Amino acid sequence: MELLYEGKAKRLWTTEDPNTLRMEFKNDATAFNGEKKAQFEEKGRLNNAISTLIYGMLEKEGVPTHFVREIDETNVEVRKLDILMVEVIVRNFAAGSFCKRTGVEEGREFSKPIVEFSIKSDELGDPLVNDAYITELGLATEEDLAFFRESALKVNDLLIKFFAECGLQLVDFKLEYGRLCEDPSVIVLADEISPDGCRLWDLKTGEKMDKDRFRRDLGNVMEAYQEVLERVKKASEA
Amino acid sequence: MELLYEGKAKRLWTTEDPNTLRMEFKNDATAFNGEKKAQFEEKGRLNNAISTLIYGMLEKEGVPTHFVREIDETNVEVRKLDILMVEVIVRNFAAGSFCKRTGVEEGREFSKPIVEFSIKSDELGDPLVNDAYITELGLATEEDLAFFRESALKVNDLLIKFFAECGLQLVDFKLEYGRLCEDPSVIVLADEISPDGCRLWDLKTGEKMDKDRFRRDLGNVMEAYQEVLERVKKASEA
Ligand SMILES: Nc1ncnc2c1ncn2[C@@H]1O[C@H](COP(=O)(O)OP(=O)(O)O)[C@@H](O)[C@H]1O
Ligand SMILES: Nc1ncnc2c1ncn2[C@@H]1O[C@H](COP(=O)(O)OP(=O)(O)O)[C@@H](O)[C@H]1O
Ligand SMILES: [Mg+2]
Ligand SMILES: [Mg+2]
Repeated sequence: MELLYEGKAKRLWTTEDPNTLRMEFKNDATAFNGEKKAQFEEKGRLNNAISTLIYGMLEKEGVPTHFVREIDETNVEVRKLDILMVEVIVRNFAAGSFCKRTGVEEGREFSKPIVEFSIKSDELGDPLVNDAYITELGLATEEDLAFFRESALKVNDLLIKFFAECGLQLVDFKLEYGRLCEDPSVIVLADEISPDGCRLWDLKTGEKMDKDRFRRDLGNVMEAYQEVLERVKKASEA
Repeated sequence: MELLYEGKAKRLWTTEDPNTLRMEFKNDATAFNGEKKAQFEEKGRLNNAISTLIYGMLEKEGVPTHFVREIDETNVEVRKLDILMVEVIVRNFAAGSFCKRTGVEEGREFSKPIVEFSIKSDELGDPLVNDAYITELGLATEEDLAFFRESALKVNDLLIKFFAECGLQLVDFKLEYGRLCEDPSVIVLADEISPDGCRLWDLKTGEKMDKDRFRRDLGNVMEAYQEVLERVKKASEA
C-alpha cells in the first residue's frame, strides 16, 4: 500500500478500501514546531495504545471519531478524512503558550474551559487566531467553528472525568477534525489523543506526565508515557 | 497641574475638573513595541489636528467619545476614563501583523471587516487573543466585547467613508475604549485616531500615508502626515 503522508509523529497509508487509511505511530518526537527532535523507542507503541483506549472511550460516549480498529501495536485503521486546517485547543489550567502570551503563571485554574483555534501550519507556527481570521481564510465556516466549540467542550468533559480516574489532571489538549471523504457533510474527530498533545499532571504530586518532559528536558519521558498508559488501561477496564 | 501618565506618544495631565484631563500630543514616534524610536518636530501638532477633526466627525455622527475640546495646537481636553486594557483592531485589507501571522500577502481585501482584540500591554507586546482570554483575564466582559465589536464596525463604516472623501483607503486601525470616571456604566471611545494608529493608503497611487513610513524607513514621514491633515481638513469643511 502507498504512503500518503509522512508527518512529524505519524504516517498515513492507503488501504484496499479507498475510504479508510492506516495510521502508523512513529517513534519520532518533535517540539517547538519541529526545531527540537528526538527518537524514543517505545513512543509509537505507547501513543497508539493510549490513543486507541481514549478513542474507544469517546466512541462509547457517543463522540463520532475517525477510529475504526487497532491493527497492531503501532497501527490503527481510521476513516479517511479531509482534515480541517484548524487546531482546536481546550485549556482548563494556564500552561504553555497561554502563559507566554498573557504573562499568567502556570497552573492557574480557569473559571471555565477556554477554547481557542489556531491555523494548522508548521510553516506559520500554528498561530492563534480568532474566528474571523478562520472564516476569512476559508479554513472553516462559522457553523464548523460552533461545532468545534461544542464538540471540544464535550470531549473535555469526558476527558477530565476519564483522566481523573487515572489520577491525572487534564491541563489542556489539542484536537483536530476532518470531513469524511465518503460524506463531506459529516465532521468527526481525527488524529490522536495522547501525551503528545495533552498536558497531564499527576493529581497528587503535580508531576508532568506529557510531552513537556521532552520540551523541558525533564527526563524519563517514556517512563511517564508508560505510566499514563498503565493508568489509562486500568481506567478503561474499570 | 499634575502629570498623570507619560506614554509613548502622549502625556495626560490633570485639570481643575476631576472628570476631565488634558491630553498632550508629543513629537515622539515609536514602533515595534518601543524598540524603534525617533522624534519628529511636527508630529504632535499634526496628530492632534487630524485626531481632533476625526473625533469631531465621529461625535457629529453620534459616536460617544472622550473628546471635549481642542485647547491648543498640541493639547485637547478629554473626559477622564478608566481605559479598558483591550486594543480593538479593525481590518479591511491585509497588512502588518495579519500578514505576518497568516502568510497572506499585503493588500488583500477582506470579504467583510475583521475585528480583533489584543491585550493592551507593552510588556507582552499587545498579543492577539480571543474573547475567552479577555473575559478570563477580567479585562472586559462579554457584553463589553459585543459593544466593542458593534461600535468598532460603526466607526469603521464612518471612517471608510470619511477617508474615501480624502482620497485615502482605510486599511486597518486600532481603537481604545474606556469607562467614564464620573459614570463607569458608560463606555466611550478614547485615545487618538491618527496616522499613528491607522493604515492609510493613497487611493490613486497606493502610497502609504501612515506610520508604516516610519516603521519601514520610507522617508517623508511628516510630509505624509501633513498631506493627510490637509485632506482631512478639506473633507471636514465640505
Ligand atoms: N483520519 C484521517 N484522515 C486523514 N488525515 C488524517 C486523519 N487523522 C489524522 N490525519 C492527519 O494526518 C497527519 C498525522 O501525522 P502527524 O505526524 O501528526 O502530522 P503533522 O506533522 O502534520 O502533525 C496530520 O496531518 C493529521 O491532520
Ligand atoms: N480619556 C482618557 N482618559 C484616561 N486615559 C486615556 C484617555 N485617552 C487615552 N488614555 C490613555 O492615555 C495614554 C495615552 O498615551 P500614549 O502615549 O498613547 O500611551 P501608550 O504608550 O500607553 O500607548 C494611553 O495609555 C491611553 O490608553
Ligand atoms: Mg500532528
Ligand atoms: Mg497609545
